[in-house]
Amino acid sequence: MIEHQVQVRVRYSETDQMAYVYYGNYASYFEVARVETFRHIGFSYKEMEAEGILMPVLELKTKYLKPAKYDDLLTVKVIIKEKPGIRIKFEYEVYNEANALLTIAETTLVFINAKTGRPILPPEVFTSFFEKYYLNDSKN
Amino acid sequence: MIEHQVQVRVRYSETDQMAYVYYGNYASYFEVARVETFRHIGFSYKEMEAEGILMPVLELKTKYLKPAKYDDLLTVKVIIKEKPGIRIKFEYEVYNEANALLTIAETTLVFINAKTGRPILPPEVFTSFFEKYYLNDSKN
Amino acid sequence: MIEHQVQVRVRYSETDQMAYVYYGNYASYFEVARVETFRHIGFSYKEMEAEGILMPVLELKTKYLKPAKYDDLLTVKVIIKEKPGIRIKFEYEVYNEANALLTIAETTLVFINAKTGRPILPPEVFTSFFEKYYLNDSKN
Amino acid sequence: MIEHQVQVRVRYSETDQMAYVYYGNYASYFEVARVETFRHIGFSYKEMEAEGILMPVLELKTKYLKPAKYDDLLTVKVIIKEKPGIRIKFEYEVYNEANALLTIAETTLVFINAKTGRPILPPEVFTSFFEKYYLNDSKN
Repeated sequence: MIEHQVQVRVRYSETDQMAYVYYGNYASYFEVARVETFRHIGFSYKEMEAEGILMPVLELKTKYLKPAKYDDLLTVKVIIKEKPGIRIKFEYEVYNEANALLTIAETTLVFINAKTGRPILPPEVFTSFFEKYYLNDSKN
Repeated sequence: MIEHQVQVRVRYSETDQMAYVYYGNYASYFEVARVETFRHIGFSYKEMEAEGILMPVLELKTKYLKPAKYDDLLTVKVIIKEKPGIRIKFEYEVYNEANALLTIAETTLVFINAKTGRPILPPEVFTSFFEKYYLNDSKN
Repeated sequence: MIEHQVQVRVRYSETDQMAYVYYGNYASYFEVARVETFRHIGFSYKEMEAEGILMPVLELKTKYLKPAKYDDLLTVKVIIKEKPGIRIKFEYEVYNEANALLTIAETTLVFINAKTGRPILPPEVFTSFFEKYYLNDSKN
Repeated sequence: MIEHQVQVRVRYSETDQMAYVYYGNYASYFEVARVETFRHIGFSYKEMEAEGILMPVLELKTKYLKPAKYDDLLTVKVIIKEKPGIRIKFEYEVYNEANALLTIAETTLVFINAKTGRPILPPEVFTSFFEKYYLNDSKN
């Protein structure tokens, strides 16, 4: 299992006139959290994409428990419970500075070949970074 | 049951470097679809908010089946299956001009009192607009 | 000279907690206005890009006179005063429903070859659409 | 004179299908740079707004010299040349990791009373933070 957390400061542009973070803007927080989790384990999403593999999102589920507000320094916790195959699932928890749980979410992404648009297995270099986190995970 | 559909043209700002509509940007299409559905049945979300009732989103679920692309003229179909109570649930289907189903989604929103932040029943004027659509819906 | 106008309804996602349209979001209104002006004179930006010509923005100037608000039906007036060369300049005026002038702006864009990244003259098909609007414009 | 710099990592959501940062998205980088410059000198924009003073943008000018790309770690340099009065002017320079100058910009903002919507002088607490940076600035 991989767990990581990143911090994101709420921008004015991300608020709406309800003075909440607009519900669609969490998607970019989750994206930042995914990419930084990859960077943390030594893997560059940017490079993988430059080599012709894309990772579009297949599914997004979000529960908004409490609003994030302007200038909040949010902590986004990311969990990848299962070793990725063609698909990879991320779970997220968003906390504010008072440690209140604001949002829980999950996304499923798929590896695709940029040229064919077809799903593919993740590249060797990606899988190798993940190996050590799922050593006993014989089911995968 | 209420069904309505709106058209939204994909903006360049909404694409990402994958040349897909960024997955977080559908949230604003759904918002437009909700508000226009309200306008269609004679109800103004803007006025309700001016009178102190907000409708934040509690939950969002989206399945991305095929990508929407730049300049696509999307049709967003909205369905409100059940008569709204304190909560209101919207289902969405997004189609492109070739009538391919790109995205399915649902959101749950709640009526809250802007001053107290507490959930409340929708205003009379709102409920009255909905009456005729759920005449035989005795369970609600 | 080309003049055209388009209407854009302010989305909730485009507001900020000041209850104004966020100042960065006008850029996408201008983009919509440019593209619809092109479509109006018979030209498709999307097709030009598919054929390998991009039009990035070189310069943006915006004066915010009065705020646009949620649900405002804005009119964006576009003016192309001079016949486009390698560069093309657009001027904009944004009005609300009360006909108050909210914003004035201008952008300069450049035609570039997507492969080389170098500036190029606009394609013949583009220039031909523009001919009739600048018949007496011998300086260009 | 005040000079400060902040770093911003380009998000996938901020790119467009040209694989550039969308031209409207720099506005939020400038906003982050302003707010962090305030925080750096000890001043909280959030608190000022909570006390009823807003700072809407009056004018934005941006020159796009070279594109910012996905995952770039940008440095945004902020300069406040003149001591703020009712208006405050910020200049910006955006650099990528190779130290190439990508964008130059300036914004003018105004202090307004949230209740009346009228321009006002900045609050004492704000001015005091600025004093030491403009000691010899007798013209202001």
